[in-house]
Amino acid sequence: DMNIDSISTTTLIRLPGLIDCHVHLREPGDEHKEDIVTGTASALAGGITMVLAMPNTKPALTNLSVLETTEKLYEKKALCDYGLYMGASIDNAQAASEIAHRCIGLKMYLNTTFGDLKLDNMESWMQHFEKWPQNIPIVAHAEGQTVASILCLAEIYGRSVHIAHVARRDEILLIRAAKAKGLLVTCEVTPHHLFLHRDNSQFILNAYGNNEGFCHVKPELQTVEDCQALWDNMDIIDCIATDHAPHTKDEKSKKENPPPGFSGLQTVLPLMLTAVNNGKLTIEQLIEKMYKNPKRIFNLPDQGDDTFIEVDMERKWVIDDKSLLSKSAWTPFIGMQMRGAVHRVVLRGEVVVVDGQVLAEQGTGKNLVHLRDKNNKKIKRV
Amino acid sequence: DMNIDSISTTTLIRLPGLIDCHVHLREPGDEHKEDIVTGTASALAGGITMVLAMPNTKPALTNLSVLETTEKLYEKKALCDYGLYMGASIDNAQAASEIAHRCIGLKMYLNTTFGDLKLDNMESWMQHFEKWPQNIPIVAHAEGQTVASILCLAEIYGRSVHIAHVARRDEILLIRAAKAKGLLVTCEVTPHHLFLHRDNSQFILNAYGNNEGFCHVKPELQTVEDCQALWDNMDIIDCIATDHAPHTKDEKSKKENPPPGFSGLQTVLPLMLTAVNNGKLTIEQLIEKMYKNPKRIFNLPDQGDDTFIEVDMERKWVIDDKSLLSKSAWTPFIGMQMRGAVHRVVLRGEVVVVDGQVLAEQGTGKNLVHLRDKNNKKIKRV
Ligand SMILES: [Zn+2]
Ligand SMILES: [Zn+2]
Ligand SMILES: [Zn+2]
Ligand SMILES: [Zn+2]
Ligand SMILES: [Zn+2]
Ligand SMILES: [Zn+2]
Ligand SMILES: [Zn+2]
Ligand SMILES: [Zn+2]
Repeated sequence: DMNIDSISTTTLIRLPGLIDCHVHLREPGDEHKEDIVTGTASALAGGITMVLAMPNTKPALTNLSVLETTEKLYEKKALCDYGLYMGASIDNAQAASEIAHRCIGLKMYLNTTFGDLKLDNMESWMQHFEKWPQNIPIVAHAEGQTVASILCLAEIYGRSVHIAHVARRDEILLIRAAKAKGLLVTCEVTPHHLFLHRDNSQFILNAYGNNEGFCHVKPELQTVEDCQALWDNMDIIDCIATDHAPHTKDEKSKKENPPPGFSGLQTVLPLMLTAVNNGKLTIEQLIEKMYKNPKRIFNLPDQGDDTFIEVDMERKWVIDDKSLLSKSAWTPFIGMQMRGAVHRVVLRGEVVVVDGQVLAEQGTGKNLVHLRDKNNKKIKRV
Repeated sequence: DMNIDSISTTTLIRLPGLIDCHVHLREPGDEHKEDIVTGTASALAGGITMVLAMPNTKPALTNLSVLETTEKLYEKKALCDYGLYMGASIDNAQAASEIAHRCIGLKMYLNTTFGDLKLDNMESWMQHFEKWPQNIPIVAHAEGQTVASILCLAEIYGRSVHIAHVARRDEILLIRAAKAKGLLVTCEVTPHHLFLHRDNSQFILNAYGNNEGFCHVKPELQTVEDCQALWDNMDIIDCIATDHAPHTKDEKSKKENPPPGFSGLQTVLPLMLTAVNNGKLTIEQLIEKMYKNPKRIFNLPDQGDDTFIEVDMERKWVIDDKSLLSKSAWTPFIGMQMRGAVHRVVLRGEVVVVDGQVLAEQGTGKNLVHLRDKNNKKIKRV
């Protein structure tokens, strides 16, 4: 019997296996920061049974050749389920659209530059919106007024767009107004923008040698008012997504241009469970934002009854960086007091995590892109 | 008989008095660059019988007190008809809306900073869109992706927006796509972005001591491809507007931070008549873009039969800076060969210009804001 356990079951609750629609697992190209095995192990240990992986790898996933290489790597190594994003580049709109059926979505980088993936001209935005299939999501890294820009394109092309890592008050208020008007927009918020802001993040520097790089993330940590605005608009936030973006301590300690990004896969659920315990959101909202909504947005199949996680709502513990499975080996949430923990993870009937111990073998994870609902075409609003 | 003239009437044609919906006459505050008398004299000499004046004066027109001062100055001095824009500031959304009926439109500066008029946060954009009356235009200085941003706000708030000085290929293509989708957007293009670009503007530097400042304008002169895209999309350009922004030769000669801007009131019509003669647009299009469309967009009354201009379609001449009435006393179109000239301008039955000679007295011009059609409410698209 899989349910045998020594903990009183009164504090254990069962949740769906969670879906994180925004992770960077660094393979291929930056395996010293993370790889598919360590990244998906972190996911499972965090109660996440499916990750959607971003295309800013080395090389970037912007063509069939890199897609095929990456598919093979995941097929062999992944411990949890996954989908792979196509990266939009200045000249791949047609080619990308032709292999869209093998991708979980199209990622457009509109503000910051990441190698091949910079899109600085609206003409290339328009080409992608014209070519990319209506029933496969477009996800945009768009900050500030760029959120409005990309919503305009979605409206012109009669399709939806998903806004990654909303971090600012004006962004979430715009999205609220757009949703109220019926525009087809969805959005995600990261745990670090919910729990950290410029005025409460000194403890990160204290923990990591006062190196500013450990607070550096894109979008940056914002003001306390921006942070509060995210909580105040929780009702219109579709997804909690980690933007898991590991870098080593050495890299984050650099004085010149430390790379932006935090790991998040193993800490997001405890943080959200703690928020539930503190009355900041309901467990139903957590399930919506970490399972139902990403499933709906990315047209994914329902999980079977044999995939689920068990969480201990009452367990109190403190986040440290010793128990992290990520190669990045540090966390911006270090020292934070949690109430709520992952107890067990079951994937297709197989117990893959018990109390932080990951039992899954490489290759356990499946690419769910071919199981998604192809009939779920997004319809033009009339 | 007003029609008596020594030129053969076969080359003379009669047009409406033109409306320039984008001028900076520099008064109050920068009267050494231009004032209401020299600015409106330039307008009349150029065949323009109405100017819409921008609010980035010193002080900026962002409140009732400056509006009243400016209204009095124009009432006393203006040689041609006019309307005054309200400037949107970070904190005047409510106050501006209360005096909107006295203003021709609301000007929002979204990219570049002009003193009080910087709007760098979408929250203040949203406040203005919420408060400003639906039936009075909002005009946006928006470049590149900011065009899409502000179209998104217009769509969310169910109202139209007018895009100032469209200069780039991606901007005009976006506006074409937006219009095709039924979004409520209108736009203007300046003569300098139609006739000048980075590769054909060396003659300006040659004429003015090789000082780069004489080519500096906001938006900057663009590439030949951008320039061609404006001509190629002439069918969806609503207005030709000068963005007349005079600065003295001394100011433009500065090596450090020369101010951006060109004068344009006296040269725009000859340039457009020359384009008509060269088959680049029709005289009907000229009338649409320089009279009918600005009249429609700003809800202005029809002109009476006693207001019109006469142009000589055949007169050949070369633009020089000796005959300019603007205090700026230089022009980026210097040396350009024209075919077409303003012959006579008649405003409410009074001959106000004959062959470059301005005969109007100060105070001839009227504020047409109170004559506009108040019933012309822009309706929410359904
Ligand atoms: Zn991003
Ligand atoms: Zn930073
Ligand atoms: Zn990311
Ligand atoms: Zn246990
Ligand atoms: Zn401007
Ligand atoms: Zn310049
Ligand atoms: Zn201007
Ligand atoms: Zn004459």
